[in-house]
Amino acid sequence: MNGNFSYCNPTRLYFGPDSMQNLRGELEKYGPNVLLCYGGGSIKKNGIYDQVIEILRAAGKQVTEDGGVMPNPTVEKLYEGCRLARECKADLILAVGGGSVCDYAKAVSVSVHCEDDPWEKYYLRMEDVSCEIVPVGCVLTMVGTGSEMNGGAVITNHQQKRKIGHVFGENVFPKFAILNPTFTFTLPKYQMVAGFYDILNHITEQYFSGQDDNTTDYISEGLMRSLIHSSRIAVQDPTNYEARSNIMWTATWALNTLLAQGKSTDWMVHMIGQAVGAFTDATHGMTLAAVSLPYYRHICPCGLEKFRRFAVNVWQVNPDGKTDEQVAAEGLQCMENWMREIGLVMNLRELGVTEDMLEGIADATFIMEGGYKVLSREEVVQILQESL
Amino acid sequence: MNGNFSYCNPTRLYFGPDSMQNLRGELEKYGPNVLLCYGGGSIKKNGIYDQVIEILRAAGKQVTEDGGVMPNPTVEKLYEGCRLARECKADLILAVGGGSVCDYAKAVSVSVHCEDDPWEKYYLRMEDVSCEIVPVGCVLTMVGTGSEMNGGAVITNHQQKRKIGHVFGENVFPKFAILNPTFTFTLPKYQMVAGFYDILNHITEQYFSGQDDNTTDYISEGLMRSLIHSSRIAVQDPTNYEARSNIMWTATWALNTLLAQGKSTDWMVHMIGQAVGAFTDATHGMTLAAVSLPYYRHICPCGLEKFRRFAVNVWQVNPDGKTDEQVAAEGLQCMENWMREIGLVMNLRELGVTEDMLEGIADATFIMEGGYKVLSREEVVQILQESL
Repeated sequence: MNGNFSYCNPTRLYFGPDSMQNLRGELEKYGPNVLLCYGGGSIKKNGIYDQVIEILRAAGKQVTEDGGVMPNPTVEKLYEGCRLARECKADLILAVGGGSVCDYAKAVSVSVHCEDDPWEKYYLRMEDVSCEIVPVGCVLTMVGTGSEMNGGAVITNHQQKRKIGHVFGENVFPKFAILNPTFTFTLPKYQMVAGFYDILNHITEQYFSGQDDNTTDYISEGLMRSLIHSSRIAVQDPTNYEARSNIMWTATWALNTLLAQGKSTDWMVHMIGQAVGAFTDATHGMTLAAVSLPYYRHICPCGLEKFRRFAVNVWQVNPDGKTDEQVAAEGLQCMENWMREIGLVMNLRELGVTEDMLEGIADATFIMEGGYKVLSREEVVQILQESL
Repeated sequence: MNGNFSYCNPTRLYFGPDSMQNLRGELEKYGPNVLLCYGGGSIKKNGIYDQVIEILRAAGKQVTEDGGVMPNPTVEKLYEGCRLARECKADLILAVGGGSVCDYAKAVSVSVHCEDDPWEKYYLRMEDVSCEIVPVGCVLTMVGTGSEMNGGAVITNHQQKRKIGHVFGENVFPKFAILNPTFTFTLPKYQMVAGFYDILNHITEQYFSGQDDNTTDYISEGLMRSLIHSSRIAVQDPTNYEARSNIMWTATWALNTLLAQGKSTDWMVHMIGQAVGAFTDATHGMTLAAVSLPYYRHICPCGLEKFRRFAVNVWQVNPDGKTDEQVAAEGLQCMENWMREIGLVMNLRELGVTEDMLEGIADATFIMEGGYKVLSREEVVQILQESL
């Protein structure tokens, strides 16, 4: 474990098929005014909306609805949410949906009482919160982002062609999250597998860094193996509770700050993927899938030992009689095979990217410094070209 | 993930070589009166006591000392600690030591304001806390028990020949814990390796249960592999920071409630080991080591698939051309080899157990029902005989 760090995660999780029973008790901890955030309306079709509304009414809450949160929540939507939350004097923001809705709820929570423009303050200037924070709770209907137990909140500004994540501190983490794996059963396959890849990539972003031996990396290997195993079951049998519940739990632990403790992290796939998202509005997990293999093959020589370990420990590649380069390459080939098998988008063209966008996407890509190689802008362009 | 569960761990950890710098800030959250608990005085030799006292004085605290907490804290010592805490009107109990001191501090914390006899209420009747709880903080100097981030508190009653653990709820968890791996460097080898086995056994107690595929078991495999790897380095080179820090982090996550989520757990090695401890006052981890192999070989046929998986995933046993029984046995043989290699006590005689004690130890053993086999009293006696 490198350096000094502190760890505390205050989010309370309720997990399981009956976890919604805990919503009422949580609601009682907050005042009467609830801003209810949700997405495009699927929760109205599958009955989750009705369940939540019934519990809110039984708890005597004044509910202000804030539907239509889009998959990549925009800055304009953020402004609208802040206005609604101010108007209703929200005591609690309840997010019912996937990572985008949770991210959005957190972005609203730190912006309602903020005098500055939140986009400029949190996303362009990356400043800390200096105002009252409205508490957030989550009812999760889609897994992948880990947003239910962390401080991340990604917002997209289409005009400026920027998709930026701010990682807020513990005081912004959801106070509680309700994780019912059966709520994820009806998700379309495209969204489901995009979420699976988002999970894997959260783990690899934190795994492919550092030269030391670190307990965290062993935990990461376990989570990846569990995810790969369960994802293969889930794509064949989406209502397999065992598989979906394991994936839901893995998603939370993949990005609830544990895996980042005591080590450096990479995050370049997310940086490139988010820049792609700013230009195309494509599904987040698919933007990661489309650029990952060119990126990892590019940096592999700089972190060869770890890529070799990834091959052996995660993909059970037999290293006997092979060079480290061969073992590492075989591991990435196994990852590619799995990605194709579960049905991910494997190139940027399918996401609407054209050659003429690449320079702009590269300009919109933040270069992070924690991984095995600090990319130049030219290398970002090269990776984008290889991802087309 | 089986059933419904909730998860929240409120303990704040400060980890690393400079983690003591955070003690002052934590102390400021509490009132002026501090009960300072520690063990046999090793912290006075290695300078940790002086560091803590200096920070307590600088923070203007009134310190009441409660030293001499023994490795298996007794009910008499608990009564004494309660009296001291009442007399000094303790606002905070600060435990400086290993798991025994942390366990003791928690037992005192729930007993100071308790009108009942705490041994009878918490340990014989297993009742919940119904009084004010004095907050606890920890400065850890020895790893193994995970007590720094959980609600466990084991107390021994020599007169009644009972060593019993009560697992208290989140409100009893330490508010903060300072984890400096360098503080563990000077621990005698016997205590160090006993702690290592305590960690492994915390994981196996939670791993050897259940028939389903569960993400938790993959995390457990990762933690076990990290522990085995780092323990081999630490026994050769006790001041290897990388190894000791990984072991410290693994110990915390082995028993901070994560691994028990969504699955049943066994705990029979601890039940038998604690009964041995009540009769011999032997070092906790060594009591577990002495009875583990006979126990696991006894239950192996009832959880064959998991023991096979343990062999392959934790010990890298090659299963090709072998029966499941052979693979499982080979895994336990690898575990035995590792136990001998790091220098554990492998039989009960070395801990002072004699043949005539076995019936009494069996009587003092609580039979738990979460593992692969519910033991009869006769089977407990048989396992004890095989452990002699």
